[in-house]
Formats: sequence, structure tokens, C-alpha cells
Amino acid sequence: MRPPLNRLSAAQLVRMIASREVTCEAITHSFVDAVGQRENEVRAFAWIDAERALSVARGFDLGAKFGLLAGLPVAVKDVIDTAGIATEYGSPIYAGRVPGADAACVAAVRAAGGYVFGKTVTAELANFTPGPTRNPHGPEHTPGGSSSGSAAAVAAHMAPFALGTQTAGSVIRPAAFCGVVGFVPTRGAVPRAGVKQVSDTLDVVGCFANSVEDAALVASAMALRADWCDVHRAAAPPVIAWTETPWAERLSPAMLEALDAVVKACADSGAVVRKLQWPAGFTLLADAQRTVQVFETARAFSAEFDDRREQLSPLLAALIEEGRAIDADSYLTALRTGRNCAASIDELFWQADVVLTPSAPGEAPHGLGSTGDPQFNRAWQLLGGPQINVPVPRALRRSRSNLPLAVQVVGRAGADARALSAAHWIEQQLQRASA
Amino acid sequence: MRPPLNRLSAAQLVRMIASREVTCEAITHSFVDAVGQRENEVRAFAWIDAERALSVARGFDLGAKFGLLAGLPVAVKDVIDTAGIATEYGSPIYAGRVPGADAACVAAVRAAGGYVFGKTVTAELANFTPGPTRNPHGPEHTPGGSSSGSAAAVAAHMAPFALGTQTAGSVIRPAAFCGVVGFVPTRGAVPRAGVKQVSDTLDVVGCFANSVEDAALVASAMALRADWCDVHRAAAPPVIAWTETPWAERLSPAMLEALDAVVKACADSGAVVRKLQWPAGFTLLADAQRTVQVFETARAFSAEFDDRREQLSPLLAALIEEGRAIDADSYLTALRTGRNCAASIDELFWQADVVLTPSAPGEAPHGLGSTGDPQFNRAWQLLGGPQINVPVPRALRRSRSNLPLAVQVVGRAGADARALSAAHWIEQQLQRASA
Repeated sequence: MRPPLNRLSAAQLVRMIASREVTCEAITHSFVDAVGQRENEVRAFAWIDAERALSVARGFDLGAKFGLLAGLPVAVKDVIDTAGIATEYGSPIYAGRVPGADAACVAAVRAAGGYVFGKTVTAELANFTPGPTRNPHGPEHTPGGSSSGSAAAVAAHMAPFALGTQTAGSVIRPAAFCGVVGFVPTRGAVPRAGVKQVSDTLDVVGCFANSVEDAALVASAMALRADWCDVHRAAAPPVIAWTETPWAERLSPAMLEALDAVVKACADSGAVVRKLQWPAGFTLLADAQRTVQVFETARAFSAEFDDRREQLSPLLAALIEEGRAIDADSYLTALRTGRNCAASIDELFWQADVVLTPSAPGEAPHGLGSTGDPQFNRAWQLLGGPQINVPVPRALRRSRSNLPLAVQVVGRAGADARALSAAHWIEQQLQRASA
Repeated sequence: MRPPLNRLSAAQLVRMIASREVTCEAITHSFVDAVGQRENEVRAFAWIDAERALSVARGFDLGAKFGLLAGLPVAVKDVIDTAGIATEYGSPIYAGRVPGADAACVAAVRAAGGYVFGKTVTAELANFTPGPTRNPHGPEHTPGGSSSGSAAAVAAHMAPFALGTQTAGSVIRPAAFCGVVGFVPTRGAVPRAGVKQVSDTLDVVGCFANSVEDAALVASAMALRADWCDVHRAAAPPVIAWTETPWAERLSPAMLEALDAVVKACADSGAVVRKLQWPAGFTLLADAQRTVQVFETARAFSAEFDDRREQLSPLLAALIEEGRAIDADSYLTALRTGRNCAASIDELFWQADVVLTPSAPGEAPHGLGSTGDPQFNRAWQLLGGPQINVPVPRALRRSRSNLPLAVQVVGRAGADARALSAAHWIEQQLQRASA
């Protein structure tokens, strides 16, 4: 028996639409059904209108199917503007705010044949105070954040794709905790017009899907980069440098085991895999990223802090106060650390296509009061290259937990297509090894 | 007889408010009067409400005066969000759009004691299709763009300061054409949250005023950089490298004469002034800047282009089409050109504090159909350092024209305070030489 439509890959759904095996309406129906089954528990959506979605899908069926996304639904994080649909940033300050125009990335998704299926829960203003979303794999565990609802919606098969944003680890961490693929493209590759700003230097628009191929599909639409789509391009296995990073003492035993299992599966499949000698200067990146983020957040949210402080969470208000106390020299030094490391990126990627490293310290922590620790994301985010979260199949792990674990595949800035094809190759080897 | 309040420098007005020589209401009155006298001809404002402004000023007089800006009015370009005040981006697409929150830079200005006096005319979506503004020094001449209204409002003494934005030359060029000081800080130094995006890489929030000291005042408020204010800091005259740039064939004879006069005045006053040997690699910057701008503009305006093309000017629609046709490799190469030149910036600034160079090809061209040529701004904008437009006093020029001419003072990225104090020093020598 064929699995329900909402369990198929988006790439397969696109092929089925093209060959008229299935209607857009039927596909949307299967996602609407999943929302009916899971949303009460998961609470991934800030806004969703099933009737509207079905009506849009019927419109696609009546008209010509077109574009990379062929009439598929896309969930959109609620810090990204959607024309005529409330975009409230996860903050009471913006309750009822309805933008007049789509963010550029949403317009690009629509131009490629996607449509806005729902808006997903964000942590407050894409920061650290959680919304109501629960982890689909364990309702007492955080889904991660700040793109909590986007990761959870895809993990619960309530949407085939979702858009998110990342300033520290807001795509990779929730993707890891929810067991889906998350992709953060090279900084600047996806336009940010119409996205609520957190840190001008660091913010990147990314996406979630259930496979690397599907993530590449929606990302290539957002970035107008058709060349990202062909993830099967790798003629030979990638050269992989792996690292536990200098923050390995924070890693859970299960994560260390999972990383070992991934390294072994890749090496067994013929990849050149070597342990990365972490360059000492790169250890500064994590603290530097945090300095840049907090300094810029304090400035980006001047209006909210000055005029509506009582409507900010105490956590965010304190972060803004911390950022205002950072002196300009410390900030400029942190930016310089990022630039210097980016300029000597060869030390990190020496002879390797990608770096393989943990996405998070371990499984999603228990409790909904925190979205988890972005320490394993900070350095990569300041470097600004592509990052892809790849879940580790349960069969490769010894732990009996139901919660996902994942590794991330990091590429050089600008080398998104190469990083995506390496991540796709690794994903395939993990599936093969666990079969 | 003392000149009217609206002709005094903002720095002096701040001192007079502090010593209770004058009320905020009286100051606002003098600007409101100037609006009554000049606005019909100049058409600098997209929105202004004199009663509201006077009421805000009376509120300052009743409460405590505070902050760097001490209750002074600030005009704001209409691509910058203002809470509860229409922000229409100079485009019919956004007619009636009223943001719920201030842009971060506006919030910072308010936190420093400034208030929104009016919204100023922008060229369509901060691009090249002019609004109705006329040059205060010659109504048949362009005021420059895209920050047309901001430059004209300050030039006509209808506001002591104005905020603007620059992607190519949208602050420096209108400042030059209107004969006021324009300041574009180092890229990233002023938060861009709440500003309509044109090019994510290039957009910078800047400002206009009638002196370098006044520009530094409002910029330091926007950037929360108190250290920018002390423009008198220079212990010794600056070391100045001057250049006609590789595009000198576009310069008018009057501009070449003005540049010579500025060089002579600086040298006569004891500055070390040498002619810059333009490094060959830096010639690529102008075309690279244009490629980055057009490629990113095409993506930033996806929603407008896809959904409201009939409401875009033919000029902007064509620019977006041009940007969509640029391949990703050309764009990435252009970004790399910018990064490489920024990394070898010593070749340009070798032993110099600042580079002195024309702000524009010459005086404001005749006609209101074009905002003029940004060729002399492109290279500096891609480099991302501070740029300051300094008008050349009439007495130093041979031409009998009433239209202003100006030079720009360019600094290294991050060295805003040094560039401002050098520009202030140059401004003083020009006033001395013309006295």
C-alpha cells in the first residue's frame, strides 16, 4: 500500500503532479488531514486556514501547474511577511499586524508555484522565549527554536516544506530536535526584504523539509538558484572533515556515538573522511558570534524596547540591556574575528568539501521553557557558509530514545550546491547503513 | 541682528535649549515658517503636520529636555518606518501604508530627544524614478536622489536634520546637488531594521545636516556611537589623498576647478595633501557595485514585480528585469571584487586618513526627469566605509552658477570618527579660505 500523500517526498509529489497522477487539491487535503490529527498536540501553526488552502490548491488544478514547486503548500515562519495574512513575529506587540506585501522570499516561492499554507510559530521575535509548539517526537520536549513551528510542522508531516530564519541556530537546532532536514544557505543568497530583523550581520533565511533534495528544491526557489537543485551531481563521494568542535564537553554520549556512526557509514561507503584539526583561532568564533548577535539585537529592537518594554519577555529585555552595554570596540573586534576566520577558511576546510559536526549538544532537552543551546551553531553562523542538518536514523543509534539526533554538514560560503550534494550523499549512506 | 532660528546650527540650538535661551516650540515654529515659505516650490515633504509638530515641541518644553538632540525636529525619508505615520516608499503600491512601529534608527533618534517632523520625498522605492522635489537652489534642476526630499528640506532650512538611505549615491549625490552635508556611515553601523530594502549588501542609513558637526550629532544618535560627536578632536591637520578617480572624463570643468580649490585650501592650511595613485584593481569597483545592486534589487522587489508590475515605473521594472538576467556567477564575482578591494584597502589609503574626491560629476543637471549620475559614489559604496559630502563655498569657485558643488571625504570602514573630524577640518578650511 502506498503511504499517504503527505508522507511522500516533495520531489516525488512534483513528479506526480506533472504526470497528472494526483491533484494539488488531494495533496493539500492530505496535509490538512495531518493538521487535523496532529496540530492540537504539536501547536506548530500561528495561523492556518484549511478552506483557503484547499481553494488555492483547486485553483492550481484548474490552471496550469508551473514552476519548481508545482502547486505545493509551504509553511512560513511568522517573522516573514505574507501579504494579507497576519504576521505577528511571536510577540503581543505585533498582534493583528497584517503586511500589505509578501517578503521577497515568499514572493519567490509563489513565483515558483508554491503557496502559503500557514504561518508557523516563532519564538518571540525570533529570539529565545518559546512559543507554544511541542516536539512532535515527544510533547514534553522542546522542538528547538526560534523556527519552532516550521521544524515541527514538517516533522509531523503537516507541510512538505517550511521557511525559517537563523541568527545563531534557529534553523539547524529545531531541525535537529525534530528530526528533519534544515538548510541555512550562504549568508546573503536568499533576499531578506520583508523579514523581521534580529541581527543584520547574522540573519539568514533558511528552510525545512524531509530530505536534502526537498530542502534544495524550496531553497533554490527562494534564492532563484536553479543550480542548487541537482543534489545528485556528486560524481565521487565527498571529502569530509569531521570534528567534535572545541565545545565537545557539552556533547551527550548519544551524540558522540551518533557522530561516530555517521563517520563510519561515510567511510564504509568510500568517502575520504579525516578528523579535523581545529585551528586555534576559530575557537573565538562562538563568543564573537554571540557578541555580534546581542549587540545588533539591542539596536534592531530599539523601538520595541523603548516603547513597549512591558510587552517584551524578561529574557529578551535582559538580552537587549546586555547588548546596549557592549562597547563598540568589542563589537568591532568580534566582527573582525569573523572576517579574519572567513579569510583563512582554508585552515578549516583544508582539502575537504564539507565539515561534519554535531547540530546540537544532543537530543531535544526535556521541558518547554527553553529552546536549547545554540553553541554548536554559533561559529558556523558567523562564518556565513551553508549549513545542512541531516538526521541520524534510529537504527544507527544505540540509545532507546524516541527523540531524534542529527549532524550538520557545513560548506564554504558560496559553495551551497556542493554542500547540498555532499549532504544528500551522506543522507543516502545513512539510509543504506540503517536499512 | 541674529539670523532666524532655523538658520542656526543644530549644535547651537542644542546649547540654546540647554541654557533656556529658546524653547523647542520657538525652534519648531521657525522650521514650520520655512515650510510655509518654501515647501510649495521645493516639495520636499511626503507628509508633514505642523500642528502635530508644534504640539510635540510644546511637550518637550513642558517636560525635561534630554539627549543629544534635545527636542529638535528630524525629517525622515519615506522609506524609513515611522509608527503611526504613513510610510509609502514613494510608490503607489504602498499608498496609505502606516507602520505600527518605528524603524530602529528612528527609535534611536527619538531616544536621543529628536522627533519626527515630517516624511520626505524619496525617488520610487529608493531607486531612480524621481518624486516631485525640486532643487532649492534652482527649481528647474534635480535635487538628486533617491533621498531627494531629505537633502532639499535641509538645504531650504525646513529641517535641521534629515535621515536618508544610500545604495549607490542616494545620500551623497542629493547632498552635493543641494549644497548640504551628507553622511553615510560605515556599512552596518546604523541598524536597518524597519527600512525598506533595496540591496541587502549595499543599503546604508545616512543623514543630512548643514554642517559636519550637525551631521555627526544625528548620526551618533542613530548609531548609539557617542564617540562620533567630537568632530573637533583632530590634534593635527589630516593626511589627505585626493583623486579625480578613473572616471574623471565625466567631471565638469567647474568640478575639476572646485576640487583643485579644495586641495589648495587644505594644503595652505597645513594638511599633508598628495595625489592618490589609483590602484588598477579598484577600477573594477564601480561596475561591481552596479552588478550587486541590480542583482539584489531584482530579488528584493520580487513581490512588487510579480504582483504589482503595472504600478512600478518602466525604469524600475526594466532594472528588475536586467537584474533577473544577471547570472549568479557574475554576481558572486562582483561581491568578491568588493571583498578583495576592501581587504587591500591600504593600497588606497596608504598613509592617508581620508580620500578627497568629487561627490558627483558636477552641479545638479537641468531637468527633473533624472536624479543624476551615481558613478562617483559606486566604488566607495561597495567598499563600505564612511562618506561625507562637504559643499564647496561659492567664493572658492570661478563659475557664476547658483548651483552648489561639493567634494566627498571618504574614510576607512570603521573609522567614522576619524573621517568626520577630517571632514570637519576641511569644512573649516574652506570657510576660512572663502571668508
